[in-house]
Amino acid sequence: MKKKTLVNVETKLFTFAEPPNELLFESGQKLGPITLAYETYGDLNQDASNAILVLHAFSGDAHAAGYYKGDKKPGWWDDMIGPGKALDTDKYFVISSNIIGGCKGSTGPSSKNPKTGKPYALDFPVVTIADMVNAQRRLIDHLGIHKLLSVIGGSMGGMQALQWVAAYPERIRSAIPIATALKHSPQQIAFNEVGRQAVMADVEWNHGNYYGKSRPERGLAVARMVGHITYMSDKSMEEKFSRKLKEKDSNYKFDADFEVEGYLRYQGDSFVRRFDANSYLYITKAIDYFDLSGAKLIPTGKSLDVAFLVIAFKSDWLYPPYQSQEIVRQLKMRHMDATYMEIRSTYGHDAFLLEVEEETMLIRHFLGRIFAERGRNAK
Amino acid sequence: MKKKTLVNVETKLFTFAEPPNELLFESGQKLGPITLAYETYGDLNQDASNAILVLHAFSGDAHAAGYYKGDKKPGWWDDMIGPGKALDTDKYFVISSNIIGGCKGSTGPSSKNPKTGKPYALDFPVVTIADMVNAQRRLIDHLGIHKLLSVIGGSMGGMQALQWVAAYPERIRSAIPIATALKHSPQQIAFNEVGRQAVMADVEWNHGNYYGKSRPERGLAVARMVGHITYMSDKSMEEKFSRKLKEKDSNYKFDADFEVEGYLRYQGDSFVRRFDANSYLYITKAIDYFDLSGAKLIPTGKSLDVAFLVIAFKSDWLYPPYQSQEIVRQLKMRHMDATYMEIRSTYGHDAFLLEVEEETMLIRHFLGRIFAERGRNAK
Repeated sequence: MKKKTLVNVETKLFTFAEPPNELLFESGQKLGPITLAYETYGDLNQDASNAILVLHAFSGDAHAAGYYKGDKKPGWWDDMIGPGKALDTDKYFVISSNIIGGCKGSTGPSSKNPKTGKPYALDFPVVTIADMVNAQRRLIDHLGIHKLLSVIGGSMGGMQALQWVAAYPERIRSAIPIATALKHSPQQIAFNEVGRQAVMADVEWNHGNYYGKSRPERGLAVARMVGHITYMSDKSMEEKFSRKLKEKDSNYKFDADFEVEGYLRYQGDSFVRRFDANSYLYITKAIDYFDLSGAKLIPTGKSLDVAFLVIAFKSDWLYPPYQSQEIVRQLKMRHMDATYMEIRSTYGHDAFLLEVEEETMLIRHFLGRIFAERGRNAK
Repeated sequence: MKKKTLVNVETKLFTFAEPPNELLFESGQKLGPITLAYETYGDLNQDASNAILVLHAFSGDAHAAGYYKGDKKPGWWDDMIGPGKALDTDKYFVISSNIIGGCKGSTGPSSKNPKTGKPYALDFPVVTIADMVNAQRRLIDHLGIHKLLSVIGGSMGGMQALQWVAAYPERIRSAIPIATALKHSPQQIAFNEVGRQAVMADVEWNHGNYYGKSRPERGLAVARMVGHITYMSDKSMEEKFSRKLKEKDSNYKFDADFEVEGYLRYQGDSFVRRFDANSYLYITKAIDYFDLSGAKLIPTGKSLDVAFLVIAFKSDWLYPPYQSQEIVRQLKMRHMDATYMEIRSTYGHDAFLLEVEEETMLIRHFLGRIFAERGRNAK
């Protein structure tokens, strides 16, 4: 049976415009007005107890599910969100929120600074995952939701979910961090730093002042290529490309010979058309700064009334399972309700977007339980 | 007891200058004169049966051991080569050969084209590992050695050793490929391709015509940073850097915060002072093209009278042990004398330069056996 899909989806904007509605950033800088792009699917029930917040990964956006009017490609997690799917929109009210610092409709370095009439560029404050979540908390207030049924996300989306736990545990019943970590290891920082260096090495970057001029496309493309290697596994690359040769575009000596080279170049080129180089710098830094290791995930040290489903993937070497196990260890030390699942996938980090069947089974069951228990746990 | 060291070491040049002494490249192009830089340590014995050829990795050079006059830093494998060391220069005559296509004294894209008086740049022919070994074979002829006791190298040096097996099995008694592979996987090609793209994205690269002008230093530095991540392991980075912060050089927003970032920047910056960007492109391509998989290592299909010691490192994710095991599998299928050793190191790919003690034990014993048997095996 073919599943129904959501159509005529629209991205909405939430702006908290007037002082004191500006946002105080972790860095101490204030900025306003702030806009967050978001989408919603399904309907909020009477007691506002069926809302799930979906948080996206590094290069994602608010468009998680369904089709824009006339569009041929659905949102990035359409396999998981919709009628009868893991996040069942017949039952739940699903909110997908973008992040500040980005370039997908929310306020970020490419937004116009109302004080100068020009894009902020590097005048934009340092952004942290906590800043992103603080802005999202205002959106949730605005939507009239006191307590989210769940916060869910993969990769950087998982970090946002963990930040919700650390900052607003009383606002959530459960959290589903997928393929993520409590902090970046030096290897993960190193990959991000190489991407930043590639962007900043491009003369067009011009210390961030490239708006209205030619953009640092070549540097940003190189940065994205590095990323794509880390999203796949050795094995999934072998299965997809092996050493297959591609038809050469020219007789140029350093033209792409192998299919994998053509794939990376394509990924790099298409990324620069949809992403802002300064956002690349700000968001990767936010990820590197993120650190909820040790006692920081639960600063009170007391067991929280938040249930967890933690999911990792065996072949994910960018966010290896040991990092998810560390999340679970922190929870179990506080006798909390936490389920850990390691999915046997060969897709590497990308698995969180691809292993739909197993994720659906796990998440549907978990959410069903939390939803059923919501009355009992109400405080 | 402190080991003796070699002093007053000198790099020599071997040039095969007159036609027909030019080199026919695999690509079909001919080039001459060709110069190879090399060093020798110890003395050749009377029947020229104690010669070992050392082959270096991607960014290495002929200076493998001892000290140049007045120099404070020894060659790159000084821990392994010298009196009483694994490659014992009291017993063996050790030759360390550079490669063509490089920028360390041998003919490469930065060498002057005698026909134009200018550097070859991209007019230099495509170089393969087979071309490198063909040039080395002329050097071995020139040194009056009919049969090498062993060929040994790590990483790309291991590929050269394997190429000696495939092309000149009658000229070697043994081979010691370390932390290497019969062919690059798509992931390995992908990392090299990202490095090449970083170089070519630099406007200073100028399609290879930067000699005498400003060089593509920023792009080459980014390429090197990617390399350095792949040379270490997740664990060795954790042990070396963890999330330690460094003192910031400035208040600049995207200055290095973490020690690992400072380390990568330092590695990138120091590399561009000693390496040519076009050589980077040519040599990484040579590595990607290399393919002795399946029957290609031993084209006759018959068992060879060449003994093998194959060494891999548990935490090496750039050249994972399964690639060394595949070499051994090919040898064992032909009932050949092959010893496989996987060293439990946390250093990642760099282990072949660092795990001196275990390597010394293995290699000294292996070479001793081959040297003792040389009379018996003589044909």
